[in-house]
Amino acid sequence: MRKINKKKVNAAILIIGNEILSGRTQDLNVSFLSDWLNKKCGITVEEVRVIPDIEKKIVTNILELKKGFNYVFTTGGIGPTHDDITAKSLSKAFKTKYEYHKEAYSILEKYYGRSKFNDGRKKMAKMPRGSSLIYNPVSAAPGFIIKNVICLPGVPSILKSMIDNVKKYLVKGFVVLNKSISLYTIESNISKELTKIQNKYSKKVDIGSYPFFRLGRIGVSVVLRSSNKKKLDFCFLEIKKMVRKKKIKVFK
Amino acid sequence: MRKINKKKVNAAILIIGNEILSGRTQDLNVSFLSDWLNKKCGITVEEVRVIPDIEKKIVTNILELKKGFNYVFTTGGIGPTHDDITAKSLSKAFKTKYEYHKEAYSILEKYYGRSKFNDGRKKMAKMPRGSSLIYNPVSAAPGFIIKNVICLPGVPSILKSMIDNVKKYLVKGFVVLNKSISLYTIESNISKELTKIQNKYSKKVDIGSYPFFRLGRIGVSVVLRSSNKKKLDFCFLEIKKMVRKKKIKVFK
Repeated sequence: MRKINKKKVNAAILIIGNEILSGRTQDLNVSFLSDWLNKKCGITVEEVRVIPDIEKKIVTNILELKKGFNYVFTTGGIGPTHDDITAKSLSKAFKTKYEYHKEAYSILEKYYGRSKFNDGRKKMAKMPRGSSLIYNPVSAAPGFIIKNVICLPGVPSILKSMIDNVKKYLVKGFVVLNKSISLYTIESNISKELTKIQNKYSKKVDIGSYPFFRLGRIGVSVVLRSSNKKKLDFCFLEIKKMVRKKKIKVFK
Repeated sequence: MRKINKKKVNAAILIIGNEILSGRTQDLNVSFLSDWLNKKCGITVEEVRVIPDIEKKIVTNILELKKGFNYVFTTGGIGPTHDDITAKSLSKAFKTKYEYHKEAYSILEKYYGRSKFNDGRKKMAKMPRGSSLIYNPVSAAPGFIIKNVICLPGVPSILKSMIDNVKKYLVKGFVVLNKSISLYTIESNISKELTKIQNKYSKKVDIGSYPFFRLGRIGVSVVLRSSNKKKLDFCFLEIKKMVRKKKIKVFK
């Protein structure tokens, strides 16, 4: 685990699932998680990986990411079927026993009823020894956290319902603020000016420019990001001055 | 570059862009590219990474992925602004000169007209020495291929318009076929049966199960994938037999 610097806390997201890789399912968890982590916890997502349901791949990626980032969030692979191998793979990665978590077992037994608590359902109570639970108010099966790795389900609505229960485990950092303006122009018309402003604010404000097509017209969104509100405001004023000077129409 | 096995050709996608990581923009290229690569070229996407616009990160990831996969597709970072650093970073990764590509230069000069061909626009003609162009019928600025790395733009509509021009550079593999059935049940009700069928077909057919919420009802999609049509059909029959036996309703 990367040492936590109180100002900057970062994370990686590891999406475990063939359905995203094959193009069959559109991932929706990255945008939700990134936004939530930044706004609620001041944690910046700095890398995302999508990998197949293959134990060796999961282990290698967990070992790499848990070292490089303060937190690693996994999504997917904690259900009851044969292709749900996240918990087992995590046990391998952390060299700890893969076993029933007592509280998880009793939560699930109560939820399904003893007579319907079959092997697939029991499997959802198995996790690496030493895990702490992340409660699931929708469908009972809990996520878990072990060291700096947080394992969440892949179904977006269930993940969302659990996210507030993750908060207590996280050290918070500085929230990255942003301001943006959408312009009726093309990137190559403002690239010189943006470079100048970016150089002036060097590492204090991060300026991004993103082409868009909206209502049949093309344009560019200029997005400023910074954890320093003052610098952000100043930089934004300079962007607006440039826009007026070049007589570029603003998209409202 | 991983040695090409005629049967199985794989690829990784490297998405370069702060806007995807921050959650501001929803990526749409992964699902399109994965689907296109499988159906049109028999190439399977086996890993996706999303990384920020930071040269060091781009170089490290390119070096890692180009070794591990037959092809690496990058999206984003080939526009005219200061945050477009894909081409320059690729030159670093391949230890080759970052310079004007003659044909790209003349395409862009013609497109913008000599008097409006400013520095930002000229930048889009700069790429690693030895690159081959991928033509762009929408907005002129070409993508490029160097060794086994194919660099495409981040704007989905432009990427789509260029994709057929990538085909001639790719060695084709076996297309992975799929069949799926959506059931009104929950995963833990069929997990035991799915495990049995999966074990029987071991590595010949890949069975995935994905919970869904549709029209207010919950269900599970069972997806079978294989490059062997016969095995796929047999396996699908067994799934249907199991469904009938357990009297599970099928979602039409």
